[in-house]
Amino acid sequence: MKSPQKPYVHGRTERETERLNYQASGLAGLLHHDTCYQPGSRVLEAACGVGAQTTILAKNSPGAEFISVDISKESLGRAKLRVSTEGITNVTFREADVYHLPFMPETFDHVFVCFLLEHLPNPLLALKKLKETLRPGGTITIIEGDHGSALFYPDSTDAHKVIDCLVRLQQEMGGNALVGRELWHLITDAGFTDITVSPRLVYADRSRPEYVEGVKKIFIAMVEGVKDQAIIRGLVDSETWDKGIRDLYRTTEHDGTFCYTFFKGVGTKKC
Amino acid sequence: MKSPQKPYVHGRTERETERLNYQASGLAGLLHHDTCYQPGSRVLEAACGVGAQTTILAKNSPGAEFISVDISKESLGRAKLRVSTEGITNVTFREADVYHLPFMPETFDHVFVCFLLEHLPNPLLALKKLKETLRPGGTITIIEGDHGSALFYPDSTDAHKVIDCLVRLQQEMGGNALVGRELWHLITDAGFTDITVSPRLVYADRSRPEYVEGVKKIFIAMVEGVKDQAIIRGLVDSETWDKGIRDLYRTTEHDGTFCYTFFKGVGTKKC
Repeated sequence: MKSPQKPYVHGRTERETERLNYQASGLAGLLHHDTCYQPGSRVLEAACGVGAQTTILAKNSPGAEFISVDISKESLGRAKLRVSTEGITNVTFREADVYHLPFMPETFDHVFVCFLLEHLPNPLLALKKLKETLRPGGTITIIEGDHGSALFYPDSTDAHKVIDCLVRLQQEMGGNALVGRELWHLITDAGFTDITVSPRLVYADRSRPEYVEGVKKIFIAMVEGVKDQAIIRGLVDSETWDKGIRDLYRTTEHDGTFCYTFFKGVGTKKC
Repeated sequence: MKSPQKPYVHGRTERETERLNYQASGLAGLLHHDTCYQPGSRVLEAACGVGAQTTILAKNSPGAEFISVDISKESLGRAKLRVSTEGITNVTFREADVYHLPFMPETFDHVFVCFLLEHLPNPLLALKKLKETLRPGGTITIIEGDHGSALFYPDSTDAHKVIDCLVRLQQEMGGNALVGRELWHLITDAGFTDITVSPRLVYADRSRPEYVEGVKKIFIAMVEGVKDQAIIRGLVDSETWDKGIRDLYRTTEHDGTFCYTFFKGVGTKKC
């Protein structure tokens, strides 16, 4: 999944871990409120990373048993620490690659993935592999963003340019930062049924200060994280970069607005 | 408002009237469900056009009294016919320009505008003029789209080009098809208080066939309506146009998706 061998566009620094945790807690209501698993059910969380979503999932479904996997030992270490610090006992961690899952077919009642497909060169293959681990009648839940949904006032060509740097860098690494809009077709093509996809829009203006903070600490921080790569690769000059970032921060000021849309999809494996 | 002297980007044909009525009924729940006025209140609907929203408003608040104005005699004629055909009796129509409203200050308890600001060269002035007609403590409700929010799969550069033609033509006529994101700042700058802006996202995939129809009959039909103007003005060649429109229709096929976001803002005039 987020292989340390294959570079991960956001990096695996302490600061990035903080960003991911802030993101997960700030968006927990919006993204996770309707994900709750029956007591006794076995759930595979694929690509748990540093465990940012794991703690939310496990607390929402205290009677379910989670097996959370990631390809990065370093991330798994952080996830384990986080889960044990919070006193959560219904999660087991395991090192695994989503394309080569070490589980028997039909092992799980449910599969959960969040912010994984955007980093994969072959998201459809990953979904098919995940489907094999599901029992018939089991569900898959997928949450992804789509950077093309970023909409803001004041609008700014340079701000779009810096966002586009992140999109292009992620693409060069085989990912797709615009994958949210594709969930319907990916879940369909992977052969799931009873599919529902629901967009989850985050909107920030001064009347919603917690969301304004989120725009800075989640979205803009994520874009800022690729500055060096973007400039070294010649995707943008440093003057344009600085202007674009300033313009993004400008959208968080008194009269600014910022919108971003996540997509959540659920599908069922045929009985 | 939608002056027959000043060209209106969508035109005033019978087909456009049908499109506006389809749009209003298809989006009534999403856009209007939370607009309900107290019995006895006087409401100014500014720029009622052919009455597409008027009938919904008047039915939602049967005890309120609506004064619906528009600058186009022709549109008002259609609006009157529509309202009387539906047996609605709490609406009075009047020909008026939003910049020069023929009402005493503080005449109304509420003001309602929908898809108006996007066509105005000076939306802030219009809001200030509308505010004068409101009693202290009265509210203004504003609904606008934002064509920059259109997000679809499969993505297509040509599809974005044809949408951009509409944006540019509207801009050349003094309007702003990207005004939705600006509601917060416009309502703030016009001096209203207790402002809330809420985005209303429409998402279409095959599991929501009524929304897929809406994408075709509302959004794509609206874009198609400016074909001749776009080509005559040299904004696009006819081959690119046709490809762009085909690509938009492609998003309504089996594995396609389409998102669009409207913005609804409410503000109060200080007591």
